[in-house]
Amino acid sequence: MHKHIEWKKVLIPYEHAVEELKVKFKSIRKELTKLGEYSPIEFVTGRVKKISSILEKAKKLDINMEEFEEKIEDIAGIRIMCQFVEDIYTVVDYIRERDGLDLEIHSEKDYITNYKESGYRSYHVIIWYPIQTAMGPKRILVEIQIRTLAMNFWGTIEHSLKYKYKHNIPEHINDRLIKAADAAFQLDQEMSEIRHEIRQAQKMFEVKSNT
Amino acid sequence: MHKHIEWKKVLIPYEHAVEELKVKFKSIRKELTKLGEYSPIEFVTGRVKKISSILEKAKKLDINMEEFEEKIEDIAGIRIMCQFVEDIYTVVDYIRERDGLDLEIHSEKDYITNYKESGYRSYHVIIWYPIQTAMGPKRILVEIQIRTLAMNFWGTIEHSLKYKYKHNIPEHINDRLIKAADAAFQLDQEMSEIRHEIRQAQKMFEVKSNT
Amino acid sequence: MHKHIEWKKVLIPYEHAVEELKVKFKSIRKELTKLGEYSPIEFVTGRVKKISSILEKAKKLDINMEEFEEKIEDIAGIRIMCQFVEDIYTVVDYIRERDGLDLEIHSEKDYITNYKESGYRSYHVIIWYPIQTAMGPKRILVEIQIRTLAMNFWGTIEHSLKYKYKHNIPEHINDRLIKAADAAFQLDQEMSEIRHEIRQAQKMFEVKSNT
Amino acid sequence: MHKHIEWKKVLIPYEHAVEELKVKFKSIRKELTKLGEYSPIEFVTGRVKKISSILEKAKKLDINMEEFEEKIEDIAGIRIMCQFVEDIYTVVDYIRERDGLDLEIHSEKDYITNYKESGYRSYHVIIWYPIQTAMGPKRILVEIQIRTLAMNFWGTIEHSLKYKYKHNIPEHINDRLIKAADAAFQLDQEMSEIRHEIRQAQKMFEVKSNT
Repeated sequence: MHKHIEWKKVLIPYEHAVEELKVKFKSIRKELTKLGEYSPIEFVTGRVKKISSILEKAKKLDINMEEFEEKIEDIAGIRIMCQFVEDIYTVVDYIRERDGLDLEIHSEKDYITNYKESGYRSYHVIIWYPIQTAMGPKRILVEIQIRTLAMNFWGTIEHSLKYKYKHNIPEHINDRLIKAADAAFQLDQEMSEIRHEIRQAQKMFEVKSNT
Repeated sequence: MHKHIEWKKVLIPYEHAVEELKVKFKSIRKELTKLGEYSPIEFVTGRVKKISSILEKAKKLDINMEEFEEKIEDIAGIRIMCQFVEDIYTVVDYIRERDGLDLEIHSEKDYITNYKESGYRSYHVIIWYPIQTAMGPKRILVEIQIRTLAMNFWGTIEHSLKYKYKHNIPEHINDRLIKAADAAFQLDQEMSEIRHEIRQAQKMFEVKSNT
Repeated sequence: MHKHIEWKKVLIPYEHAVEELKVKFKSIRKELTKLGEYSPIEFVTGRVKKISSILEKAKKLDINMEEFEEKIEDIAGIRIMCQFVEDIYTVVDYIRERDGLDLEIHSEKDYITNYKESGYRSYHVIIWYPIQTAMGPKRILVEIQIRTLAMNFWGTIEHSLKYKYKHNIPEHINDRLIKAADAAFQLDQEMSEIRHEIRQAQKMFEVKSNT
Repeated sequence: MHKHIEWKKVLIPYEHAVEELKVKFKSIRKELTKLGEYSPIEFVTGRVKKISSILEKAKKLDINMEEFEEKIEDIAGIRIMCQFVEDIYTVVDYIRERDGLDLEIHSEKDYITNYKESGYRSYHVIIWYPIQTAMGPKRILVEIQIRTLAMNFWGTIEHSLKYKYKHNIPEHINDRLIKAADAAFQLDQEMSEIRHEIRQAQKMFEVKSNT
């Protein structure tokens, strides 16, 4: 019980960070849409890792409780969905431009160019984010995942399967998953080929909606 | 100006209907998730057609202003997104079960089995929905579109291109769009093949998240 | 544990009813504001009674578990806040007009004219509300409380004190509470005297905000 | 038209600032409630001044368009509502503690101790707030008004009357307004006298709601 209350305290700044960063990335979309520009951000979600998952990860990676806040990078997670693969890099640039201002970049992982064997594709930027709590200021790690809608659809499903099979997905399901990842990749490719047409069409559409 | 105010009045019940129906379909998801059941509804959106689009459609279909409320079926629109093609039919069944209770079915269009030449896939149910306004009770038409995430991704993009090219999309873009529709379809197929595994995995996941 | 799951099932339709009714009453405000009319509804809140409070009330009133859904009238609660005492009766009229349409009136309690000894003022309308769940249609009781902002401020505070002292508030605190109720009443009186001026001013303000 | 688009651009960072600050102050409430502590913040609202009101104020104060962003302090406005007069000063302290961290204090105005002749009571803190936009970083002024629920109720109504009468409220209405301000003040006084009881009662209540 005492332990439980402590966890609640520990996770509060992570919850605030997720709330603030969701607002900040959503604001970029709002701003561009208002200006009649194309937005590389389609939508934004966020979550704080469940206590049970933090404990599991700490155990697996042999991290002790004194250092978990500096070693587990995804306690606070932000996910940014884009329409096109190219948009992902535009969003990464936005984040890099803020480095040293309201956030600090810790590291980057490009699972788009170097996608995982499982078929997983996403771009990760891990940042240090300063937060003001009722108990004073604090700096915490946040993982930002940037991906297309198709990558996200696939990723969500792979995640639940990995969870179900405790990371040992049976081969026949795994084969299907890889085929699905290929189809998702194909969809992204075809869309990319006509993205200039689509972007222009959507800008026209947004402008109209605003008048 | 006077005309403008009249439109505002006319559209108010449509806005209410969209709000109420969004709440109602989202409640189904919440309920099932709470009970530890798989939800065929992934997320729900809604919109009221823009005045300019209503006028355009009325002109194109040669509908006069006295009858447009009975002839234009999609002034109020609800869109329900599913993970799997099979879920679409479960959602259609939910709606049919409410026929005569809080809504009345006007007609159905199955663009899944009979997909359009363009590659468009979706299931449409058009309903009569009763609404209470400050000016008294009223019955209006609402179009409910039910589709997978992949169909929705494709549909949104086709819609903006059709808008840009005023329904005359150039052939080379059209070819790409059809290829993208195929990839989307392929993705849905692969996912369907392993849907029993996925559904079970997600149920486990939801139950855990609730405890 | 089993018991717990059953409660969750039982309360689901109450949660839906609260969501739907909040949307419906907020829509009235939106509609009137859009039309440039004064809205007697300032804001709307809702809640489902906590399980522990339901059990407590059932015990106190000697209600057994087979009949609690018909005997406890406030499992689902909606609260509508008004600016002026007079607005309360306008809202009551709105509800009466819907009797037999999307709801059915069960009973009314006028704690404005007949305020409680404690200083409590509010108008209660108890309704039967039909709801569609994944388990089929159902009819449940909902208590709608209608009050001014000042009555609400006072009521919220009295509620937490009654909770703290288990309904035995010490006399010196009770005296202060009654004085506060008088001041709240005085505030409502003064505001009522100039309500025609205020309403007209606010209508002008709303119209401007919409252009 | 061109002018209009420019205003939209100018106001975007103000809209972002309002969104971010609303999230930040609401987080304080969430945090304290979660920890089982009493929250001096009851609720938070925010708005960006309408263009017409900015122009009016600029004209009245003889501010030219080059300097209005530094001279008009309330283009972005945050309003924090408290239960008790004493809570106002706790909130002011929170803001002062953040001075030099995520905001910078520009000035303060204590209209609680020195209330205006009209009866207006509120505490104003004007801050410089840094904001990241798609067009780069920027620092803008934000006015934070802190007040009790009763002060807010009165203030909202006075505001609409001043608007209606263009700052020349007729004397008989003004007399009533001052009487209402007295009743609001009286209500705040009575509540303050029993605030220790109330705070403790509400803490108990919150803790229970969280378990």
